[in-house]
Amino acid sequence: MIYLDQAASSFPKPKVVAEAMVEAVNDYGANPGRGNHALADRAAKVIQTTRKLLAERFGVSNPKKVLFFSNATGALNQAISGFPFSEGDHVITTRFEHNSVRRPLEHLKEKKKIEVTYLEGNSEELAADLKAVIRPETKLVVISHASNITGEIAPLKSMMEIIKETDSKVLVDASQTAGHFPIHMKELGIDMLAFPGHKRLLGPQGTGALLVEGEIKLDPLVYGGTGSFSELPTQPDRWPEKYESGTLNTPGIAGWKAALQELDEINCVSRETYLTIRLMEGLAAIKDVMIYGPGPDVERMPVLAFNIGDISSQEIAMILDSHYQIAVRAGLHCSPTSHDFYATSDQGAVRASIGPYNTEEEIDRLIQAIDEIRNGYMEM
Amino acid sequence: MIYLDQAASSFPKPKVVAEAMVEAVNDYGANPGRGNHALADRAAKVIQTTRKLLAERFGVSNPKKVLFFSNATGALNQAISGFPFSEGDHVITTRFEHNSVRRPLEHLKEKKKIEVTYLEGNSEELAADLKAVIRPETKLVVISHASNITGEIAPLKSMMEIIKETDSKVLVDASQTAGHFPIHMKELGIDMLAFPGHKRLLGPQGTGALLVEGEIKLDPLVYGGTGSFSELPTQPDRWPEKYESGTLNTPGIAGWKAALQELDEINCVSRETYLTIRLMEGLAAIKDVMIYGPGPDVERMPVLAFNIGDISSQEIAMILDSHYQIAVRAGLHCSPTSHDFYATSDQGAVRASIGPYNTEEEIDRLIQAIDEIRNGYMEM
Repeated sequence: MIYLDQAASSFPKPKVVAEAMVEAVNDYGANPGRGNHALADRAAKVIQTTRKLLAERFGVSNPKKVLFFSNATGALNQAISGFPFSEGDHVITTRFEHNSVRRPLEHLKEKKKIEVTYLEGNSEELAADLKAVIRPETKLVVISHASNITGEIAPLKSMMEIIKETDSKVLVDASQTAGHFPIHMKELGIDMLAFPGHKRLLGPQGTGALLVEGEIKLDPLVYGGTGSFSELPTQPDRWPEKYESGTLNTPGIAGWKAALQELDEINCVSRETYLTIRLMEGLAAIKDVMIYGPGPDVERMPVLAFNIGDISSQEIAMILDSHYQIAVRAGLHCSPTSHDFYATSDQGAVRASIGPYNTEEEIDRLIQAIDEIRNGYMEM
Repeated sequence: MIYLDQAASSFPKPKVVAEAMVEAVNDYGANPGRGNHALADRAAKVIQTTRKLLAERFGVSNPKKVLFFSNATGALNQAISGFPFSEGDHVITTRFEHNSVRRPLEHLKEKKKIEVTYLEGNSEELAADLKAVIRPETKLVVISHASNITGEIAPLKSMMEIIKETDSKVLVDASQTAGHFPIHMKELGIDMLAFPGHKRLLGPQGTGALLVEGEIKLDPLVYGGTGSFSELPTQPDRWPEKYESGTLNTPGIAGWKAALQELDEINCVSRETYLTIRLMEGLAAIKDVMIYGPGPDVERMPVLAFNIGDISSQEIAMILDSHYQIAVRAGLHCSPTSHDFYATSDQGAVRASIGPYNTEEEIDRLIQAIDEIRNGYMEM
């Protein structure tokens, strides 16, 4: 099996991930922060260490402001639905957004009567477009750091310079980029950063985090037991407890910790970029293949969306799977507005996404498979 | 280490739990329902099977109404905060509730102007008390199936008979009881049932479920990508997708599935009850020990709360841990209203909770340790 669906979930994981999870389940499967004994302390320590590792990696001053969720969607919902919006507040976001940003915002449009502006341009136009629409009522700008379909990257630095001149807060969805590009929240001035553990950060599914830098008062999304201040009928006003009711996913976080500790040795961005360009050039040479997003001279994520003529993307993915044992994703990838832009809302797109363990040979086999599939269809 | 903190998280887990998690991470770590390939299909199948196992075990007609969360708190919040309340609606609950029920309800009192009545009696009085306060505006009754402190069990059957004569819906928090007692939602007429995977059901932390029987329109708590109907700006109106945005915890669910498949061979309720009564009798024979909750002739959970004189429960737990390597929990156990009842809000209580792997010898060592600690304090 050639796995080129890394943008959905990275695979394989470093060996240490499953090992750390087994250890968590079999050696200290107690409830972190809920017991008064050595096993619970050990679980709590693993969680604290993971907070610290994430805080260091992403430039967060206070590790207690690293909040765990079961995926990036949970983290994004906490940031968006927990944001203290009032009626009439304005939010700006982009057309690259995943439904995990778009749907909570669309829901708040109804529920809290906020106004949402979607920046319609491509990545080069985003900063200028942002400047044109940002205004005093803009309370939050939500930026997808990179498209999960085309690999296109938002010009975060220049967007941040515009936002810094206003009172608006910023939420960056780093679902695709966290672990691939360095992101330093404090240096860039990012207020909130959300990402999953199971993509580029090579942790297991069931993990995600929201990182907060500086002062933001968020309302919790989930209310419940926090293992402290049990006497209060309301959530204790303390990070991270206020936002992490209930038992945490200790085995998942332990696995994520193990991945984070090995990440810098494993990740090789330039190699992934090389493979992406190799794939791009190989596909571009095939007749009838359309590639979406930026060209080979633009910095991008190792994610490539394409189609063959007007053949259904789902059909191509199915043939790749059943005939070539190549795993890719097809369809809309939970980001329909991106497809509006490329006029691929019906067809969707085939997405190949590359990770640290993929090889040149695997890329060449995908190119060859697409060539054969194209010939098979066009000769019919 | 003698582990008697089973009510916080069961430990050890059956061997198959970690094995299934390793398999999920290393053999099919793809995104269930998000890819168009064999690995994603395999992950999706594991999740479907787990839904079916839970639906069968708890008497749910439609496995698609088994919703996964990262813990019971998430499931309870979905049921309570997602319930379609209007201003002035009435909710009844008990004084046994965990903060994972109390805090969301207290929050809704503020936010949605609902009214909440707490039944103040002990378990024998609950049915009569319920009958006295239920009224046409009562839209939801939330019942903790068993106290997480005293092991006391709510008279679910007689309470259900009262509720069935009204239009009110019922949510049962089976955090302590699921896996210990059989619960059949359809037979009992329970509308919603919430529980974690990592307690009596012997799964890993990071898992929980809300089961729904019949027609209830809940609002989602989390909005995002569902892997289907991506073109919609709103959540698709379909179970389970509507309530499960984002990537699920496949390794955790795979571990839970493995536990569920072995559960009936492992669980031995009568043995756990025997050990609880042995502990109760042993502790009752020690001077100055107070035991809370029902006596040995009443059906109960294998959970026992006690104190020695007016010694801080935290102190006793610390001595048990450091001196005897016995793991228990002390404090308020996230259920402060239960402590109001026993007048133990300052002292808290020591809680020993027993699981399927605990032995007679371990119970006897706890009894002996408590005897020694008592003597040490009282002779000072």
